[in-house]
Amino acid sequence: MRLSRYFLPVLKENPADAQIVSHRYMLRAGMIKQQQAGIYSWLPLGLRVLRNIERIVHEEQQRAGHIPVLMPTMQPADLWRESGRYDAYGPEMLRIRDRHDRDMLFGPTNEEMITDIFRAHVESYKQLPMTLYQIQWKFRDEVRPRFGVMRGREFLMKDGYNFDLSYEDAMHAYNRHMVSYLRTYERMGLQAIPMRADSGPIGGDDTHEFLVLASTGESEVFYDAAITDLKFGDREVDFQDRAALAKIVEEWTTPYARTDETHDVALFHKIPAERQKTSRGIEVGQIFYFGTKYSEPMGAKVNTPDGEVAVHMGSHGIGVSRLVGAIIEASHDDRGIIWPEGVTPFHCGIVNLKQGDTATDAACEALYAGLRKKGLDPLYDDTEERAGAKFATMDLIGLPWRITVGPRGLKEGKVELTRRATGDSEELSPDAAVARLAEIYAGF
Amino acid sequence: MRLSRYFLPVLKENPADAQIVSHRYMLRAGMIKQQQAGIYSWLPLGLRVLRNIERIVHEEQQRAGHIPVLMPTMQPADLWRESGRYDAYGPEMLRIRDRHDRDMLFGPTNEEMITDIFRAHVESYKQLPMTLYQIQWKFRDEVRPRFGVMRGREFLMKDGYNFDLSYEDAMHAYNRHMVSYLRTYERMGLQAIPMRADSGPIGGDDTHEFLVLASTGESEVFYDAAITDLKFGDREVDFQDRAALAKIVEEWTTPYARTDETHDVALFHKIPAERQKTSRGIEVGQIFYFGTKYSEPMGAKVNTPDGEVAVHMGSHGIGVSRLVGAIIEASHDDRGIIWPEGVTPFHCGIVNLKQGDTATDAACEALYAGLRKKGLDPLYDDTEERAGAKFATMDLIGLPWRITVGPRGLKEGKVELTRRATGDSEELSPDAAVARLAEIYAGF
Repeated sequence: MRLSRYFLPVLKENPADAQIVSHRYMLRAGMIKQQQAGIYSWLPLGLRVLRNIERIVHEEQQRAGHIPVLMPTMQPADLWRESGRYDAYGPEMLRIRDRHDRDMLFGPTNEEMITDIFRAHVESYKQLPMTLYQIQWKFRDEVRPRFGVMRGREFLMKDGYNFDLSYEDAMHAYNRHMVSYLRTYERMGLQAIPMRADSGPIGGDDTHEFLVLASTGESEVFYDAAITDLKFGDREVDFQDRAALAKIVEEWTTPYARTDETHDVALFHKIPAERQKTSRGIEVGQIFYFGTKYSEPMGAKVNTPDGEVAVHMGSHGIGVSRLVGAIIEASHDDRGIIWPEGVTPFHCGIVNLKQGDTATDAACEALYAGLRKKGLDPLYDDTEERAGAKFATMDLIGLPWRITVGPRGLKEGKVELTRRATGDSEELSPDAAVARLAEIYAGF
Repeated sequence: MRLSRYFLPVLKENPADAQIVSHRYMLRAGMIKQQQAGIYSWLPLGLRVLRNIERIVHEEQQRAGHIPVLMPTMQPADLWRESGRYDAYGPEMLRIRDRHDRDMLFGPTNEEMITDIFRAHVESYKQLPMTLYQIQWKFRDEVRPRFGVMRGREFLMKDGYNFDLSYEDAMHAYNRHMVSYLRTYERMGLQAIPMRADSGPIGGDDTHEFLVLASTGESEVFYDAAITDLKFGDREVDFQDRAALAKIVEEWTTPYARTDETHDVALFHKIPAERQKTSRGIEVGQIFYFGTKYSEPMGAKVNTPDGEVAVHMGSHGIGVSRLVGAIIEASHDDRGIIWPEGVTPFHCGIVNLKQGDTATDAACEALYAGLRKKGLDPLYDDTEERAGAKFATMDLIGLPWRITVGPRGLKEGKVELTRRATGDSEELSPDAAVARLAEIYAGF
């Protein structure tokens, strides 16, 4: 993309009402625009990151064998009356009446509707196990929305639901989600720690939240330092291998890690003192097992050789739009965002130091074409701005790599490749720069 | 995808309440489930088609130089008060009050919000021309929703908006949209004819609808038979070349083609009698030029050397979810859907005639792996159903190609490749079948 033809409305000043760094940088980098409290438009740069996160979530869900569906945002109130949650949910549910005076709501979550789909179409235990998921907009009418997309009212979430014949099968689904989430977050450059949690309005017995450590997190967290040494890495996982998954889950759930809601001081103090850590965390996902809480009242049953059985269910969420903010909270400096390679809106920036100079323009165009030929997506700053302003914009929007092209370097056949995270620079030929970036991104 | 692990709830019987063939087949093929009047869940097969249509729309929009954004579904009423449409819109607008008693609405279209984004961030004429678009869910509270996704209440639409400095620039944007739409629909296997139209509640002077000819269409259309001979084909288009675009637009707008709303009997009768055609059509898109209708009242102005200028705008829509139905209306037979290659949910089906037979299973697995290695996405029916039922399902869900694998053919090293549209079959080696399909899909 050429910046001169793009829509990247960066702000020079800090927006007054943005209290946390991710909100500030998302506004300043022209990623979002607030339309009303807690409701945002995604401008082109922000949308690219959102789509990258979505893509990773889709890929990892499907790797685990989960099947995508898409439910509407508008739900009939009657479905929620069946589960008893219509009255229980409280003022966070956005209630709507249509022109025929039918009660509807903007779905804050989808346990009822997915159970309705299941009961309408699945009859036999032979069709199990089954996990259906979607990435769809939700609405929760927060009384005081804040922190930008971190606590918005209209937000994008992945919500998945498993349907299983037994507790054991459902716990395998639980483990499958935990393991696939570990992979998912790592691909986004995040360390998200599974912590034993409370179930809240979803209900259920087993539940873990995934938290990213960040000083701006809304939850206080307590953990054994050993857990931050764990890495999922590039291990091959067979998501049908129950024992293998259980082993990985054990690895991540053995070290103490809890939020303030489930914190157990006595247990915590059994950890060697130097490993007892307290911090704050941002919740970026949660998994639940809740058995037959919805399948019983809603009649989601399958026929088995031993008669009808209400299916065991769980639900599993990833905060897709919230992750954009969480990643920034975890990865930034005082000049701006530092995108992990896995989610960056553009793979690199190209800064032309002397726009209008024939040789420099030609070198930039050649780089631009060369990178695209390798399947990379560069943002080429071909504007008339001075160098300082171009660098400031690139730093603010946080592309992990920048190629700087100017007449002086070109005389020696060199451009400069700079890593955003460290500021380290290296001079190399344009071809070598393209090859280097292709190599770096081959792993993403 | 292996059918045994998929969620494809096909129905044996015709649903009673589905009046038109696309609605019937979408329900029978397990593509959608109605959740309430005019509101549907997209089941896995339907979602695949929807996503393919979305992908084509994105690719063609970006080819034309348009930039994706994403606006929220919930809009503040105040924005619509600025344009005067809040009171004018009528009961099709879904009006909502949040917990703080603020008036909101579920966006039925986005002229106001995109104008708000523009006025907040664009100051100089140097940033023009600019076209922003999104693919997002909309809501229109139809008094009598019907025909499945063809006239639903919650529906997915691409809506794009151009911002230009002058009438001439805006007409270039208009032409750019018309040409890119011609390409877009052709890639989906559709012939969509641009017809001079009425502007309705969007307002404006110039507008064309795109209509697909189908007996179930809601509009009566009148056209010169010459227009159905036009093909966009694979011509290379430079979307910045005004003259080239104008010429293509002229080619498609010279033959008479109008809906009943704009029909001119006298003009129509000037066409040679044998070329005067009447039919019905399904609207799948519309483009508008409406000048400063929104930019003036909402203050979307840019600075120019000659002072402030209200931008010239247009809006341009494609009915993404409606297209799923329109394609089926245009392409089916009495056994089911016939997907065009460009949008098919799977590239081909593999039917195992003797599940459990070692050699047949192995041949199917090898085919499955071979097709995937070529980047193709087959649906492998690995269930225990009998052959007749497997064929009926494949015909119903409409994959354009089917490979049938059985012990008899395998003895001679052959499988059968069948084209859904014609029923033509040919025996060839598994490797040749893979190569043939790879060749066919190389063009899509």
